[in-house]
Amino acid sequence: MPDLRRDPICGRWVIIAADRARRPQEYVATRPTRRGGPCPFCAGNEDQTPDEVLAIRDASIAADGPGWRVRVVPNKFPALTSDGAQPCRETGKGLFQQMPGLGLHEVIVESPDHLTSTSQLSQAHLAEVLNVYRQRLLAAREDRRLAYALVFKNVGSAAGASLEHLHSQLLATPLVPTAVLQELHGAGEYYDRRGACVFCAMIAEELAAEQRIVVESPDLVALCPFASRVPLETWILPRRHASHYEDLSAADLEQLSGVLRQTIARLETVAGRPAYNYLIHTSPFDTSRLDHYHWHIEIIPRMAKLAGFEWGGGCFINPVPPEEAAGLLRQNPGGLD
Amino acid sequence: MPDLRRDPICGRWVIIAADRARRPQEYVATRPTRRGGPCPFCAGNEDQTPDEVLAIRDASIAADGPGWRVRVVPNKFPALTSDGAQPCRETGKGLFQQMPGLGLHEVIVESPDHLTSTSQLSQAHLAEVLNVYRQRLLAAREDRRLAYALVFKNVGSAAGASLEHLHSQLLATPLVPTAVLQELHGAGEYYDRRGACVFCAMIAEELAAEQRIVVESPDLVALCPFASRVPLETWILPRRHASHYEDLSAADLEQLSGVLRQTIARLETVAGRPAYNYLIHTSPFDTSRLDHYHWHIEIIPRMAKLAGFEWGGGCFINPVPPEEAAGLLRQNPGGLD
Repeated sequence: MPDLRRDPICGRWVIIAADRARRPQEYVATRPTRRGGPCPFCAGNEDQTPDEVLAIRDASIAADGPGWRVRVVPNKFPALTSDGAQPCRETGKGLFQQMPGLGLHEVIVESPDHLTSTSQLSQAHLAEVLNVYRQRLLAAREDRRLAYALVFKNVGSAAGASLEHLHSQLLATPLVPTAVLQELHGAGEYYDRRGACVFCAMIAEELAAEQRIVVESPDLVALCPFASRVPLETWILPRRHASHYEDLSAADLEQLSGVLRQTIARLETVAGRPAYNYLIHTSPFDTSRLDHYHWHIEIIPRMAKLAGFEWGGGCFINPVPPEEAAGLLRQNPGGLD
Repeated sequence: MPDLRRDPICGRWVIIAADRARRPQEYVATRPTRRGGPCPFCAGNEDQTPDEVLAIRDASIAADGPGWRVRVVPNKFPALTSDGAQPCRETGKGLFQQMPGLGLHEVIVESPDHLTSTSQLSQAHLAEVLNVYRQRLLAAREDRRLAYALVFKNVGSAAGASLEHLHSQLLATPLVPTAVLQELHGAGEYYDRRGACVFCAMIAEELAAEQRIVVESPDLVALCPFASRVPLETWILPRRHASHYEDLSAADLEQLSGVLRQTIARLETVAGRPAYNYLIHTSPFDTSRLDHYHWHIEIIPRMAKLAGFEWGGGCFINPVPPEEAAGLLRQNPGGLD
């Protein structure tokens, strides 16, 4: 079983998942790569994945066969695993604290066809995918040992993908991930001082400034953040305060689908189908409504390589100002708008 | 001039260095890559770099010609630049705070010959390189607008290197880099609670446990940290408390040189000359002796690609336990010991 370890200096925790690679020569891939042979995510090859935990299909069609539109299966090479009723408790000696690597690691296969880009999905189909994210987030909350689930997508090998068939992942963890904790902490401090959500304040300033806006819809905005870490980094946020992605209605998801695929189509046009990640930041499981936190999607193109200063300093050097990035994304609609 | 921008949510700052790339198609390289043509870092090609700011050469030989052993030049594509007496002051509007990108970005060319690995340097020569780091750190402190300098090395394109000729960089900044701040903060909390340096405590526990030790010398230890982020991550630390790399004596540097090249030779043997970064974490410029902080070198092999969970969660998934990594590094001396 994997374990979670806490760095004694910073408190940063890492997942040590020894079962994912066996020899140093295998470190290159984040998980075993299939080369050749049929794609395990295509319709008809359902027997190549673990049994589905959810599929959007007509009620008359049996599980684990074709006939689905979106399909969720356990990750065959999970970073964290569930183990019955084992409690999630910190153990260890002195400074070296660790806990069992309990969690949930699922793959959301987004199409029965061998598509490779979100922009190839219809708006209605992508809305179904976004609804599956919502359903799996709600299901993951049921395990009281878990604190958070991050939904994310890896596209392209530079972004950590090992299979090109359109898919996302959900990784639920017994601790809130560091990046989300940092946002919660910063937003909490702002709220304590000002009595307002810093995301709401930022969106208002961005809409007034107009310089970094990429796509607008009645309830959502896509923008390149002021302190973008990488070229063409883009966030999608609800204009009105909302802390939990899980609370989105069918109409909300339909609208989000439109903005997400427009944004990705623009990114693909500007940068020539780059590798990228997107990920959903929502609130931790033990909260119901947070006045200081605001769910959002971060799209992180992975064209630039992180060098020693980024790694050693934790600081990004971004050669493309977000004003320029947003201008490029606005000017290149990508044929979907 | 580049600028430093502060993220309104987390307070994380980034360097927006627009002059480093001109078009989105150029984002892939962190700086323009030279292909073909003579190597600008080789002896005889000194006219291809900016004028040297320091060189270790016999006193009788003129600057900016051959005859040097280690040579420091301004980075031709600096992430930050100096601008006379301009003050470094936060400006901006509302949530969008920024400051001028003042700083110092230097390249330390480590050999006049076209060497590509630290393990190819003699122990005495590498000690000279380490002493140049020390001298340039001391020089960077002179500019009272600057708060910190990070010395780092990129080896291999996956680690952000664009030239293979053995070199390192120094980037001095008006703010302390996030990763160092996090360590200072964590170590400060431990000191306030326990009255001891957490690094010293960790080293004592590591030496007692023996599981993660790679190389030992009378005054130094190289180990794979308990919460290693990536396969074969290795830190080199002084056994006795010392907060500033800049305080090292000639004898200290000679010993460090031996441990550093042994450690890198072992890494190269185990992983087949992987891409990697190393970086020196020392104390901020405005401190003279810190009882809670401990300088060290972090060696970060870059074999694994960061995927969406690492990016979106700020959490690392490491498939190789550090106990296994340290065992491999111990068993493969790399011919230098």
